[in-house]
This record gives sequence, C-alpha cells and structure tokens, in this order.
Amino acid sequence: MEKIMAIATLACAVLALLFAAIKAHRVMKFSEGTDLMKKISASIRKGANAFLKRQYKIVLIFFGIMFVVLGVMALLGLLTPFVPFAFLSGGFFSAFSGFIGMKIATNSNARTANACREGLNRGLKVAFSAGSVMGFTVVGLGLLDISIWFILLKFVFKLSANEITSAMLTFGMGASSMALFARVGGGIFTKAADVGADLVGKVEAGIPEDDPRNPAVIADNVGDNVGDVAGMGADLYESYVGSIISACALGVAAFGDIKAMALPMLLSAAGVLCSILGTFLVRTKEGASQKQLLRALSRGTNFSAILIAIVSLPLVYFVFGKENWTIYFAILAGLIAGVLIGQATEYFTSESYKPTKGLAATSETGTATIIIGGLSVGMMSTLLPIVIVAVCVLVAYFVAGGATSASMGLYGISLAAVGMLSTLGITLATDAYGPVADNAGGIAEMAGLEDEVRERTDALDSLGNTTAATGKGFAIGSAALTALALMASYIDKVNTIEGGAEKIANLNITNPTVLIGLFIGACLPFVFAALTMNSVGRAAQSVVKEVRRQFKEIAGLMDGKADPDYASCVDLCTKASLREMVFPTVVAVAVPIVVGIVLGCTGVVGMLAGATASGFLMAVFMSTSGGAWDNAKKYIESGVHGGKGSEQHKAAVVGDTVGDPFKDTSGPAINILIKLLSMVSIVFAAIVVNFSIL
Amino acid sequence: MEKIMAIATLACAVLALLFAAIKAHRVMKFSEGTDLMKKISASIRKGANAFLKRQYKIVLIFFGIMFVVLGVMALLGLLTPFVPFAFLSGGFFSAFSGFIGMKIATNSNARTANACREGLNRGLKVAFSAGSVMGFTVVGLGLLDISIWFILLKFVFKLSANEITSAMLTFGMGASSMALFARVGGGIFTKAADVGADLVGKVEAGIPEDDPRNPAVIADNVGDNVGDVAGMGADLYESYVGSIISACALGVAAFGDIKAMALPMLLSAAGVLCSILGTFLVRTKEGASQKQLLRALSRGTNFSAILIAIVSLPLVYFVFGKENWTIYFAILAGLIAGVLIGQATEYFTSESYKPTKGLAATSETGTATIIIGGLSVGMMSTLLPIVIVAVCVLVAYFVAGGATSASMGLYGISLAAVGMLSTLGITLATDAYGPVADNAGGIAEMAGLEDEVRERTDALDSLGNTTAATGKGFAIGSAALTALALMASYIDKVNTIEGGAEKIANLNITNPTVLIGLFIGACLPFVFAALTMNSVGRAAQSVVKEVRRQFKEIAGLMDGKADPDYASCVDLCTKASLREMVFPTVVAVAVPIVVGIVLGCTGVVGMLAGATASGFLMAVFMSTSGGAWDNAKKYIESGVHGGKGSEQHKAAVVGDTVGDPFKDTSGPAINILIKLLSMVSIVFAAIVVNFSIL
Repeated sequence: MEKIMAIATLACAVLALLFAAIKAHRVMKFSEGTDLMKKISASIRKGANAFLKRQYKIVLIFFGIMFVVLGVMALLGLLTPFVPFAFLSGGFFSAFSGFIGMKIATNSNARTANACREGLNRGLKVAFSAGSVMGFTVVGLGLLDISIWFILLKFVFKLSANEITSAMLTFGMGASSMALFARVGGGIFTKAADVGADLVGKVEAGIPEDDPRNPAVIADNVGDNVGDVAGMGADLYESYVGSIISACALGVAAFGDIKAMALPMLLSAAGVLCSILGTFLVRTKEGASQKQLLRALSRGTNFSAILIAIVSLPLVYFVFGKENWTIYFAILAGLIAGVLIGQATEYFTSESYKPTKGLAATSETGTATIIIGGLSVGMMSTLLPIVIVAVCVLVAYFVAGGATSASMGLYGISLAAVGMLSTLGITLATDAYGPVADNAGGIAEMAGLEDEVRERTDALDSLGNTTAATGKGFAIGSAALTALALMASYIDKVNTIEGGAEKIANLNITNPTVLIGLFIGACLPFVFAALTMNSVGRAAQSVVKEVRRQFKEIAGLMDGKADPDYASCVDLCTKASLREMVFPTVVAVAVPIVVGIVLGCTGVVGMLAGATASGFLMAVFMSTSGGAWDNAKKYIESGVHGGKGSEQHKAAVVGDTVGDPFKDTSGPAINILIKLLSMVSIVFAAIVVNFSIL
Repeated sequence: MEKIMAIATLACAVLALLFAAIKAHRVMKFSEGTDLMKKISASIRKGANAFLKRQYKIVLIFFGIMFVVLGVMALLGLLTPFVPFAFLSGGFFSAFSGFIGMKIATNSNARTANACREGLNRGLKVAFSAGSVMGFTVVGLGLLDISIWFILLKFVFKLSANEITSAMLTFGMGASSMALFARVGGGIFTKAADVGADLVGKVEAGIPEDDPRNPAVIADNVGDNVGDVAGMGADLYESYVGSIISACALGVAAFGDIKAMALPMLLSAAGVLCSILGTFLVRTKEGASQKQLLRALSRGTNFSAILIAIVSLPLVYFVFGKENWTIYFAILAGLIAGVLIGQATEYFTSESYKPTKGLAATSETGTATIIIGGLSVGMMSTLLPIVIVAVCVLVAYFVAGGATSASMGLYGISLAAVGMLSTLGITLATDAYGPVADNAGGIAEMAGLEDEVRERTDALDSLGNTTAATGKGFAIGSAALTALALMASYIDKVNTIEGGAEKIANLNITNPTVLIGLFIGACLPFVFAALTMNSVGRAAQSVVKEVRRQFKEIAGLMDGKADPDYASCVDLCTKASLREMVFPTVVAVAVPIVVGIVLGCTGVVGMLAGATASGFLMAVFMSTSGGAWDNAKKYIESGVHGGKGSEQHKAAVVGDTVGDPFKDTSGPAINILIKLLSMVSIVFAAIVVNFSIL
C-alpha cells in the first residue's frame, strides 16, 4: 500500500507540473501586442519581480531565525532532526508556488489583452491557461513536497508513521508562515496601491480607473500580481498541503496505521487527474455570451467535482475495505459543502441577487448608509456558511464512525477538507485567471486600445469575480475544517509527549483555562484584521500623498503632456508593505507559544477553537462585505441609481475602497492565520508541556 | 441569616427608591425656562411618551404569548408554577425602570438648559440629579423585585433554595427580553432619527446640528430619550438583576445552602449605601473648569467603589467566616476589572489619546480611510478588555476555591460581576446624565438661547461621553462575566433535570456538538448586529426621504419663515422602529430552543460559550469604533484638520454616522443578547433534555 500511494502521488505531482509547463509554453506563444503594451507589461513585471525579491530577503531572515530555533529544539531532543528542514521546505515550496504564479501572470496580462483584440473567447483561452499554470503548479508542488518527504522518511530513514506525520506538520508550518507573509505583504501592497489610485484618481481628479495619467496605476497593476496572484498561490499551497497532512496525522492517530495516510494522498492524486480532464471542457464557440463563458467554466469545475465524487468511492473501498467505507460520505460532504458555501457567497456578493442590489440602492441616501449596508450584508452572510460547515462537520464526524471513536470522527472531518480541495487544480485555475484579466484590462486602458477590448477584458474580469466567489467558498470552508482537524492533531500530539496526557486531560469547556483560551483565541482575528487594515491605511495614505504631489508638481500631467513617475509609487508600496508585513506575522507565530506558556495546553486548545470560530466568521464577513461593495459599485456603473459619476456612484466607490482591504488583505490572511496558529502550537507543543505555568 | 439578608435588601431597595424620589422632587422645582423652551420640551416629552405607549402595547403581546407558553409548561410539570409570574414581573420592572428614567429625563432637559443659563455648575447639578433618579430607580427596583420574590418564595411558599433560584432566573429572562425590546426599539428610533437628521441637515443642507429648521430635530431629541435613557434603563436593570441572580444560583449550586445567596444580595444592598454616600461628593465650586467637573464626578464614583471594596471584606467574613473569606478577592477583581475596562475604552475613544487623534488624521485622505481607520481602532480595542476579563476570570475562579471545586470557582466568577455592578447607582447616574445634557443642548439651540449656554451644555455633554465610556466598560465587562456565570447555571440546571446529567456529560471542546454549538453561537452576534443595523438603515432611509421632501415642499422652511412638520418625523421613527424591533428579539428567544432541540444540551453550552466570546468582542468593537468616530469628529470640530465644514469634517461626519448604530443600537443590544440566550436556555432546559434530537 505505502509504495502504491507514494508512487501514485509522486506521479500525479509530476503530471500536474508537466501539465502546467505545457500550458505555460502555449501561453508564451501568444503575442504581447503593440510596443506600448509590451512596455507596460514589462514595467509591471519589473515592479512585481522587485517586490518579490525584496520580500524573499526579509522572509529569509525570519526563516533563518526559525531554523535556528527549531534546530536548537531538535538538538535538545524536543523535536526530531528532520523538523527544521521540513519547515524550510514548506516555506520554500509555498514561496515557489507564488513565484511561478506571478511569473506566468505577469507574462500573460498583455497577451490576454492582445488576444481580446481578436475575440472574447481567445482572451478567455489565454487567461484561463495562465490560471491553469498557477492551479496545477500549486497542486503539483504540494504533492511533490508531500511525496518526496514521505518517501524519504519512510523508505530511507524508516521512521514510524507518527514521526512522519510530525515532520509533515512542520512543513505545513513552514508553508503557512510563508503564506501569511505573502498574503499580508502582497495584500497590503495591492490595496495600498488600489486605494491610493482610486482615492485621488477616481474620486478627486475624476479620471477613470487605470488611466495612464494616474501615477499609481502601474503600482496598482503590480499589486494585482503580488497580492492576488503570488499571495493567493502561497495561500492555497498552504491550504492544500495543510488539509492533506492534517488528514494524514489524524488518520494515523485513529488507525495507528500508515494506510490511513493513503486515503488523503491518493484522493488528492486522483483529484489532479480529474482536474486535468475538467480543463478540456473549458471551451466555447467564438462569439459566446458572458453567460456561456460562465457555463464553460462551470462545466469544467463541475465535471471535475462529479468525477472525483465518483472516483473516490472505489478509492475509499480500496484503502479501507468493507468495514469503514462510509468514510466516503465525509469526502462527499466536504465536496458538497464547498460548492454550497461558494453559492452562498455568490448570492451575497453577486449583483444578480437581492443583497447586492439592495446595497446599491442604499447609495441613494449617501455614503454612510452604503457603508452600514455593506457591513451588515457581510455580517448577515456568516449565517449560511456556518450552518453548512456545521452540518458538514456533523455528517463527516458520524459517517466516519465518530459515535464509537472520537478520533475516527475527527479523521472524517479532516477528509471532508481534503475532499473539498481535491479538485483545487481546476478551481484555482478559474480563480487565478481573474487577476490576469484584471491586469489585461489595465493594459488595454493604458495602451489606449479600442473600447471593445476593454469591454471584453471587463467581461472576463466580472466573470472572474463570480468564480472568485466560488473559490473563496472553498478556501474559507476548507480553512475551518482543516483548523478543526489540526486542533485534534494538537491534542494527539500533546498526548504523545511525556507528561502531556495529564496536562490536557480536562478539555471541558467550563474549565477556566479553556474558556479564557477561547476568549483570547476569538480575539485574535479581530486584532489581526485591525493590524492589517491599519497597515493598508498607513501605506495607502503615503500613496495618496505621493499621487497628490505628482498631480500638483508635474506640469502638464493632467493634459497627458507629461508622464507621471510610476516607479516612485511602486517603490513606495514595496517599502511600505514590506515594513508592515513583519509584525502581524510575528504576532501570529508568537501568540500560541505565549498563550501556551501562560495557560497551558488546555488554554491552547481553547485558543484554537476560539480563533477558528471567530476567524471563520471574520473571514466570511470581510470577504463578503468587500465583494458586495465591489459589485454594488459595478452594478451602479451599469447605469442604475444614477450611474457612473453620480453622487451615488461616489458613495459606492467609497464602499468599494473600504472593502478592498477587507476582501483582499485582512479576510484571506485570517484564513491562513487560523491554520498557522494550530501548526505553531503543534510544533512547539513540547515546550508548552514542559514549561507552562498553569 | 435569611431574614437579615431579606430585610437588609428590602430596606436598601426602599432607601434607593426614596433617594430617587427626593432627587426627582428637587429637579422638578427648577424652572423650565422660557415659553419656547417649555413648548419644545413638551413636544419631546409627548413624542417619547407616545413611543413608549405604543412600544409597551407590542411588548405586551409578546409577554402574553410567553406567559401562556410558560403557563402550559408549568401545567405539564416542566416548570414550577411561579415561573410565568416571575417572568412577567421581570419584564414589568425592567420596563418600569426605563419608563421612570425617561420621565425624569424628559422633564429635566429644559430645566438643565435653563440652569446652564445661570452657570455650568448649576447645569451639572440638575443633569446629575436627573441621572441619579435613573440610577437609583434601577437599583432600587432591582433589589425590590429580588427581595420581594425571595420573601414570598422562602417565607410564604417555603420553597427550597434551588427552586427559589430557578424562579429568580425566570424573572431574569423577563427582564432581559424587555431590555432587548427597549434597547433595540429605542436604539433604532434614536439612530434612525439621528442619521436621518445628520445626513440631510448637516451634510446636504449644511445647517448645524439641532437647527430648528431640520424637520427631524425633535425626533432626534425624542430618540435620545427613548434610546439612550429608556433603553439604557431597561438594559442596566437587566444587567444588575442578572448578575445578582446568577450569583445566587451558582452559590446555591456550590454550597447547597441559602447563605451563598446572602453574599450577592447583601453586597448589592451595601453598594446602594456606598453609592448614595458617593453622590454627596459630586459638587464643584461655581466657575469650575471642565477638568474640575470631571474630577467631581470621578470623586463620587471612586469614593463609592473604594468604600464598597472596604465594606465587602467584613461582609464576606460575616457570611462565610474564616474558611472561604478569600472569595473577597473575586469581588475586588470584578471591581478593578470594571474600572480598567472603562479606562481602556476611554483610551481608545477619547480625543485626548493617540487612537482617536490618529483616526481624526485619517480624514485628511478622505472618507474611505476614516472608515477603515475607525473599524480597525474598534477591532484593535478588543484586545485589552479581553485580557482584563481573562485575568479577572482566572483570579475570581481560583481565589473562590476553583482548584478544589469547580462550582466554587464559578461562583467566584459570578461574584466578580456582582462586585463590578455593586455601585451601579452612582455609575449609572454619571452615565445617564449624558443624554439629559445632550437634550438640553438641543433645546438651547432650538430655543435660540445665547451661545454660552450651548457651550455649557456641550461641555456637559462632552463630559458625559467620557463617563459613558466608563459606564460602558462596566456594562460590557459585567455582561461577559454574567453570561459565563449563567452558562454554569445552565449546566447545573440540566443536571437537576431527570435524564439531564447524562445528556450534558461530555462537554469536551472536541465533542462535535459542543464545537458546532460554539460556531453557531459565535455567529449569532454577527447576525444580530446585521439585523439591527439593517433596521437602522431602513428606518433612517425613510427619515432621509421625509426630511428631503419637507425641505423641498415646504416653502420658506430654509429661511425660517415656515415651520417644519416635526410630528411626521417622530411618527415615522416610531412606526419604523417598532416594526423593526420584533424580529431580532424573537430570533434571540427562539435560537437557543432550536439549537437545543437539534444539538442537545452540549450544543447549547457550546452555543453559549461561542456567543459570549464573540458577543463580547463585537460589543467592544462596535462601541469603540462608534465612540472613536464620534470623538474624532468632535476633535476636528475643535479646529484641527480643517475644522468644521471642511472636507475632512465631512468625512468625519460620515464616520460618526456609521458609528451611530454601532455604538447605540447593535453594540449595546449584543450585551443583552448574550445574557438572554442563557436565560432562555435555562428556562427551557427541561424541553431540550426531553425532546432533543442529538
């Protein structure tokens, strides 16, 4: 069994990476268009590269310090010696996922714009191919990392199943730390640039979005790449890997047997095949309407999801046989929950439904009412996803046999997360193509292409918003399930440490350390959101000032007679976002250790439960509010409630601006936060068991 | 012991009410000023009375239905026959507290304005006296209700201690339901009027606050009374009574003895005496500065707090003797935590400190940045209070003997809440005088009094904002502690029901029903905030339209040649707020029953823990954001960042408007919500034990 799973996983990893390489090769064959388009694309690429280069330098310092800390712990016998290296490899692959995604995205933005000159369908092809490169790179690298480590630890070093999952959880921590840096850093960059560009350009100067006269316009487009692409790549690498390894760890805890690791790994490997098959269905006739485009995308993702739902039944049977085959329904529950959360998100954020339409209507009475309205849409939207997750958890727990053995039930919950993310290859492709289309629109505008090109890129972009809603559903839902699974892994971990069992015996919710841990954990997403929003605010203010300065000081700028200084805005955003990204991440790593030292292991469990619950709510709230404002603005721009340029539109732009850090910085970062907290807790469990005060 | 405590409590209740009556008598002797002032005050009074009358009619229907439901349950033997009556009495006294507060406030607004014509100190005297009436009415009625029921159940019907506390918890539920109606209904009214008046008056028409030409100005002033006074009165009645009865219930559970009830009751009775003594210290020399005024108020509250800290030591010793006297430190921890949370709130919302100053500075870059800034100030501000509550819970738990007996520890937590609220008489007085001063300012403006009068009322009002921050600290802190105590009471209650012990045995936080309950509970404050904000938004929109209509249709209105139709705005607010108040309250009552039926008792406990944690965070977040925006606006009005009328000021006004429903509708309502959830759970526990699915 072990060999089959190792080889199958490795093979699918390689297949995914090959598929990504082919797609990348095809994309690169398209033309970048006019010289101006090439020039613009090159400066975006340059800015993005410069940002990543500087970001990696800072991250390297962090990883260096952590490597030393973990190394010392390993020398003291608190960790196995593989842990520090596993940590580094997780970070490296996560960063690499983001890097590849960014590379392909910055190379396909102009190509997409150029393809849109020939037709909508051709534009979709380029953008979706670019998205596929990203999607399959992420899953390919994820499975590669997992399978190589597995082969190394199992067949070379002959470690026990327990030791293997322990080391794997550490590379999860590496991946999560890197993901948080990428999401927070990139998220601050993109929103500082976006907010800065919008506030001065659209609101004050009254020039359109992506107007080349706006000094922050290149920074804005760089931001799309470093935040929405590189950040998202690292983020989803972490989600994908995190769900698989937590399932492996819980499987080993439940069955004490390596075969429990086989299911999540084989399931993910099969998911890669299903996703690749799905991508072939994403094609439309020339001259397709937007609805048909959406149907083409949905056809691909739905096909993959249905296929994996069918394939995983024999897979479960193959691994577990007759006795435990009902675990299959846990996987199914996860898949269905992912889709349902996506639909709930779409209902609340799409301009086709009541909430966003109603939100647009609140613009009639001014800025304050649209802000209040957007906040309440977001808060209200937490209800459905939480009920869906609740039902999914219950189903997964009990079909996996939780009634007789709690650890079997928890394994079921973790499999639901793996099921939800099994077709990440294609769902991420449909998600990641959005920022490419967004960038293409920017280039079309800046290069002064015909209006119909911009209309086509806008159509693609708006389609991307819808698929992004679905993508977010998977990301948020899987984060909650994985975090719960990791919490269970933490308890298992503590139980294996000498003296740990007794320290974690009383997990009763009325135990004051659990309760207080719960309170503090629930507070963390609030604090984290505040920190990241503040960072965006501070960075955006400096951009605003710089843009205002250029408008004032550069003569002839508004008449198009002089060029703005784009580079200074890019540089400003880079510096500001890198400065701001460190503190929140360090807090996220430090808090579980501090809470553990003060409140002990029971406090840590309370903290993880609290952070997961409130983090899930905050992530949904912030993503939905942001999405609803964005689409309410677009809806108004389509001509209702006064249309573009009206007072109502101005109010909606303010809403959209507030929503920017909500949906693209703080919200997604919280998803990573809740998992990182668990992984840090697991890695440092031995310290807490030995040195805690309470 | 029982007799001493019953008589002492009853005596102090009567004393508090007598003190309130004397103060009321004194206030009424002041003059209402000019005929115009009398006329304005009368129309505010009329509007407030009309609102309360119609509100009580609707509430009566709800109470009627609940009375029948509880009656049927009592007939079926699921409850003692006293429960339905206790429920009614709780609701009645809570409503009565609000009613009295509103009566005195609407009778002292013009009197305060008139007294301010003679001097600041005289104005303070009238306003503070009015606040005292409210404060001592609330504590007097609270202790009266408790002591009468105790005497009735103990000495007339000779019930056991357990049965007595059960019945008492039911009148807690009555009080909480009424409080929620009052807070939500009043909160919607006041903010709909305020937002409506501000949006059209200040922002669109550019006329000052409280300008008589604004058609919503009377409604705005009515709102201060029905929301900030009647709502707050009912709210704090509920907090006060809730903390005492939950301590009584947990005391009985811990000691199985009526003497454990004596401590919270005697402590509260002693608190009344300390508060009365404290009020005598609130006086200043004529011509005192604002700082001296604040010092005068602080002197009163600090003196009372120190006095009760001293007095409660012998009290604890008297009740418990040498063995358990360390419980004293639980009371002390509660007192100190209340003060600290108040100071933390003040730090984040006062214009004297960095957060609000920094928030005001974000107005330089527009509306969006001040909104983002205010949201992040609020989110960040959750950290300190949660740490303070955490430390308080830990200390209270362990000094009360939690290490040896969990129920003793929980009793300690509930005593911390009682300690925190023991001097409510005077803290509420300093809090409730704020809306009176606010109203006085409105009357001064409308009656065209000299500028210096308005300056004086503004000074009083601004002072009120500071004391209100402290008051909110007590309200929020005690809500969290009381909710935790009630959660423990719920577990005790279920254990006493046949078949209950087994159903609530597994409260391990990894039990999926507990976890899912936690998720759903954590979601409730978000949904509740969304519901109430939506209500404010809808109601405000109708006000905005009406005000715009009047500005357009009534000729000569802007020149002061024609009077606006004030009554139509009052009527509109009344109708809208009463329509909107029903659904959120019904949801709050229904959810614990539904969750219990589906997830069982363990799910309910999870729900209560989740709701308490996230409710506490949301309440702090929303109150602080609202307060910070309000004061940032005031700070800008003092002349910085462009001052009144600038673009920055306009941005700040939008922030303040968003903050209005945050701090005065949703935030405070969540405080009540988390306790109501527990009380409903307790009252309907028998149904859940017998009919739950899981």
